[in-house]
Amino acid sequence: MICNNITKDSRGKLYFAGMDVSDLAKSFGTPLYLFDEERIRSNCRVYTEAMKKYFPQGSSVCYASKAASFAEIYRIAMQEGMCVDVVSRGEIYTALKAGFPLKRAFFHSNNKTDEDIAFAIERGIGYFVCDCEEELLFISSVAKERNITQKVILRLTPGIDPHTYEAVATGKVDSKFGSAIETGQAFDITRTALSLEGVELCGFHCHVGSQVFDSTVFFDAAKIMLEYVARVKAELGYEAEILDLGGGYGVRYVEDDPFIDIGDNLRLVSEFVADLCKKLSLKLPKIHMEPGRSIVADAGMTLYTVGSVKRIPGYKNYVSIDGGMTDNPRFALYGSKYTVLCPDKMNEENTFSCDLVGRCCESGDVIQESIKLPATVKRGDLIAVCTTGAYNYSMASNYNRLPRPAIVMIRDKSARVVVERESLEDIVRLDK
Amino acid sequence: MICNNITKDSRGKLYFAGMDVSDLAKSFGTPLYLFDEERIRSNCRVYTEAMKKYFPQGSSVCYASKAASFAEIYRIAMQEGMCVDVVSRGEIYTALKAGFPLKRAFFHSNNKTDEDIAFAIERGIGYFVCDCEEELLFISSVAKERNITQKVILRLTPGIDPHTYEAVATGKVDSKFGSAIETGQAFDITRTALSLEGVELCGFHCHVGSQVFDSTVFFDAAKIMLEYVARVKAELGYEAEILDLGGGYGVRYVEDDPFIDIGDNLRLVSEFVADLCKKLSLKLPKIHMEPGRSIVADAGMTLYTVGSVKRIPGYKNYVSIDGGMTDNPRFALYGSKYTVLCPDKMNEENTFSCDLVGRCCESGDVIQESIKLPATVKRGDLIAVCTTGAYNYSMASNYNRLPRPAIVMIRDKSARVVVERESLEDIVRLDK
Repeated sequence: MICNNITKDSRGKLYFAGMDVSDLAKSFGTPLYLFDEERIRSNCRVYTEAMKKYFPQGSSVCYASKAASFAEIYRIAMQEGMCVDVVSRGEIYTALKAGFPLKRAFFHSNNKTDEDIAFAIERGIGYFVCDCEEELLFISSVAKERNITQKVILRLTPGIDPHTYEAVATGKVDSKFGSAIETGQAFDITRTALSLEGVELCGFHCHVGSQVFDSTVFFDAAKIMLEYVARVKAELGYEAEILDLGGGYGVRYVEDDPFIDIGDNLRLVSEFVADLCKKLSLKLPKIHMEPGRSIVADAGMTLYTVGSVKRIPGYKNYVSIDGGMTDNPRFALYGSKYTVLCPDKMNEENTFSCDLVGRCCESGDVIQESIKLPATVKRGDLIAVCTTGAYNYSMASNYNRLPRPAIVMIRDKSARVVVERESLEDIVRLDK
Repeated sequence: MICNNITKDSRGKLYFAGMDVSDLAKSFGTPLYLFDEERIRSNCRVYTEAMKKYFPQGSSVCYASKAASFAEIYRIAMQEGMCVDVVSRGEIYTALKAGFPLKRAFFHSNNKTDEDIAFAIERGIGYFVCDCEEELLFISSVAKERNITQKVILRLTPGIDPHTYEAVATGKVDSKFGSAIETGQAFDITRTALSLEGVELCGFHCHVGSQVFDSTVFFDAAKIMLEYVARVKAELGYEAEILDLGGGYGVRYVEDDPFIDIGDNLRLVSEFVADLCKKLSLKLPKIHMEPGRSIVADAGMTLYTVGSVKRIPGYKNYVSIDGGMTDNPRFALYGSKYTVLCPDKMNEENTFSCDLVGRCCESGDVIQESIKLPATVKRGDLIAVCTTGAYNYSMASNYNRLPRPAIVMIRDKSARVVVERESLEDIVRLDK
């Protein structure tokens, strides 16, 4: 199986986090998002324990909550000693609702509005990960007005091709995010940050892409960033306290994806950073990482019910489900790969080639192309799409006025609703 | 201007539907969806008047409400004598909330669940546009149980390349929608429909793609469909009452897009249909069309506020706004083109090359690449994206926990909120 929280019994029934998914579908209906709480926690601990061990100078693991943002996830992150990344007032509001201490939150986004900045400062945000000069100046003015000093980290673009697909390639010089080191703009904003009242510069941030299977990209990023830290120390007399290397390591969506030992990779990064700091005569900065996908993706599964099976002789077969791009737009957006299972037919051979398509009136509403399912698949059968914990619920829409599914959290073989299913009334609530 | 409801005054201020958009932004905030009610109504009338004139045997214009579904739009459609297409319980529920008579609603979707079918029949849906045998059988069983006869139209795939981009190419044989004529599956389901109790077959439906600028595709579709009607008449003794040719004509998004005279094109289609029916010795069927985009697209505009302007020497420039793929995912999904204006600077020359990007923490969050704006563009400036009435609000998400914008309807130079802006509390309302 693609992840060890997915098993089957001798009758060919699929289990997720120790629970029979057919039972869950019966109890809660479909489409349905499942989350495995133990898996989320163990994913957190892979990072927190390795970071604690390998970065004795101090470190933080920030859950990039845009991957899956709902109140319960912030409670879990809090209990696991994580920090969180937030990217909007909405995520801050959700974290607060969950009782998350905002001092441990880092506010990202390439465009924070005046209202966002005032809101975050008022609520006591820990750090701004400051993207541009416009933002820095407004943070300074709000902080001065309130007679406080606001901690900020500057987002820089180290100019690295992250060996990954373009839509998450955010460390390039040509990026909507951050200030480029290569063009001198990073240095300019660093000097400005050091000169402004009301802000305390705490370090630098970069993000070289997610779904990383090879730490080389973190070595490259750390090298460029630490050389930059050394230059700033030499020329401006400021030595960064925090170096945020972004995130995160890759997740297995399909059998062909590699396994990765995150702990061991973090060890390699720590050795690289320590060596380089020695060479550059820098004190070891606190290292931050920002995993999102690798915390929640394989802790998620989506259940659907088949509506029709269309066999078009000489062309293709289609299996339509009761969800689609509304609850998982990742194939429509990026052609993302997923593993698809037939939960009640795990003992049957998968011999039926088909596309798994959604129910939206849109040809692009596809969950996965060219998969194999049991030849007996028919209306009423359950379908499970694995590894949907990241960027599914968080990106969900009401396109076609489809209600968004509930989220059910599983722990100790017990299931509870953590986000209620939308009702039809919810959908029209704001219509006059 | 891209559409004649967009004008500017001598001071260089942008007007939409006769109103100063800066004033609207001040009153209602940004991001903000604007709709021009007169334009919606006149777009409806282009179809209803031409159809009435050119199809004396009877016709219907069904607003494909997935393009923009909210209560007020069904009220307008109703007042304009339109029928509507609905694709889910959510759209039916919204139509009912608006007081739309469901007898004039056509229920589409490649996957209607048992609950959907029961719900629609219970509420008195006019017609099912039946996609597959599984659906047909369930409609029959529910109708029989209730001792009613449910009207159905069968969705067929005529096997036409609609000269348009793949994501809306739904008339091909290889489609998740409908039953293919070429493979004999259309004939099978027709025979089944004629034999089943509880259903009354009222005709046939095809959809060969939207954003059509050339009626050839409708001629091709009508030819294949009418020859099919003739075959069914000859072999099964059933003559279709309704022929639904789908929709719809193209919309101008950018200056390079052609103008199209929809009325005149409908005349050509009517002549083609009349000639062919004569040749095939068929009575003239009622012709249905299903425009969605061409009813609402150019009746819409989205207003944003600029957050940052990033000039990366030797690379590219970025203008970030306070919305993005959350309120308009069409560039992220399809690379769709839009016309972008700077409402307070309409007298300035557009000399600044840039990408207009959203505020989501995602590189793919782009509204439009390689546009030109005034060189003075800066944080706080307004941005207007034109022709956003279709597939913007309806596809909007809460990604990054961003609240969805309000919809403001303009009529007679007066603006009213028809969908309220989401609050932060709305976003967490279903979180436990």
